[in-house]
Amino acid sequence: MDNMFDKLLHLPLFQGVSQERLSETVEKVPFHFLKFKRGDKIIDKGDKCTHVRFIISGKVKMTYESRKLKFSISHELTAPEVIAPDYLFGLDTSYPFTLRAIDECGILQVSKNDYVTMLQSDKVFVYNILNYLSRNSQMFKSQMLNAEQVTVTERLVMTVAAFTTQKSQNIVLEFRQRDLCRILGARRPALITTIEELTSKELIEVPNNSSIIISDRKKLLDCLRDVQ
Amino acid sequence: MDNMFDKLLHLPLFQGVSQERLSETVEKVPFHFLKFKRGDKIIDKGDKCTHVRFIISGKVKMTYESRKLKFSISHELTAPEVIAPDYLFGLDTSYPFTLRAIDECGILQVSKNDYVTMLQSDKVFVYNILNYLSRNSQMFKSQMLNAEQVTVTERLVMTVAAFTTQKSQNIVLEFRQRDLCRILGARRPALITTIEELTSKELIEVPNNSSIIISDRKKLLDCLRDVQ
Repeated sequence: MDNMFDKLLHLPLFQGVSQERLSETVEKVPFHFLKFKRGDKIIDKGDKCTHVRFIISGKVKMTYESRKLKFSISHELTAPEVIAPDYLFGLDTSYPFTLRAIDECGILQVSKNDYVTMLQSDKVFVYNILNYLSRNSQMFKSQMLNAEQVTVTERLVMTVAAFTTQKSQNIVLEFRQRDLCRILGARRPALITTIEELTSKELIEVPNNSSIIISDRKKLLDCLRDVQ
Repeated sequence: MDNMFDKLLHLPLFQGVSQERLSETVEKVPFHFLKFKRGDKIIDKGDKCTHVRFIISGKVKMTYESRKLKFSISHELTAPEVIAPDYLFGLDTSYPFTLRAIDECGILQVSKNDYVTMLQSDKVFVYNILNYLSRNSQMFKSQMLNAEQVTVTERLVMTVAAFTTQKSQNIVLEFRQRDLCRILGARRPALITTIEELTSKELIEVPNNSSIIISDRKKLLDCLRDVQ
């Protein structure tokens, strides 16, 4: 059980909460622990986000797919991590991605209503979720106000940033080149220049014409700051 | 005082709270009421966001300016409205805009810490702020996943959407055309086509080569949904 508490205290939305408070919370609020086998679908695109969900063991793959074009972006998340808490509230509370277990993994879930009860039990919970959500909201505006030029490269990096999180690993974009051009509002030559530049800086890998792999998200996002 | 309660209950983050709970809150949490004269600067760019602030009477003008380029976007907000609560938390808690009183206006402010106390007193407060912040976070991803093509028009509309809110009025963009091209990552001919199209649909007005006026934000954003 100590080991479990330790894990919970490392979850993004639980950070900074005292062990005492956490054990009080666990007594009051129903925590559901689920197990998934390798390859299992944990969340299907369109599922309602009724619970805040955490990965407490193992690794998952989150995949977003364009509805109209051949374009997808996937990334891996390793425990301890929270799963897209930005779909718990707001206009759209359906998950727009699928989530699969890469290897055996444990998920903790707390219903939306119980989570709000948790938020009321300790300010630290409140600070954590508000910080998490505000960061996303600030990013786009900040980028637009600081940019000297929003190039195809910047639009590509901003797109990667928006669909992934700080701890995302092994980010993979799969696309038909014409469709990636449409998503980025770019002409083919500009896209090719962008891909060549980022490849030469070792920020992306390009195994073929229809995919891009990003192994170090932070390094890619730093390149955005360089151009500012 | 009844009139004041009535005003408070219409503030975006207070909606749905019972009058009883609100009066309990006002007794416990320090609410500061400030008055500003026409033309007064209420918030300066770079000011720390230490309080959640609401417009309870009058009208204000919020202006964002690019740091490097000649590009600004301003809009008017009329009471009752909350002022950019997305800067209270997150990575950057400095306001990136200036806020001026258009006519005499009243501002209510609650310190960040007291606001978190309020959140803990009633779930409705929590739902309101989480809904507000999640909406911003979802918008960019939703647009990218639904688009058949992210054109210059869509990038312009998304930029307007990101910097304004549902109740924004009289939205004005001022720019050097070359710089707006840089912000949108567009060539000049594409920008001109976009401006002509939106003008002919009466979604924007173009008093001169360096400004755009949007009088109906909702109508402009609906045009985004049409192309999806």
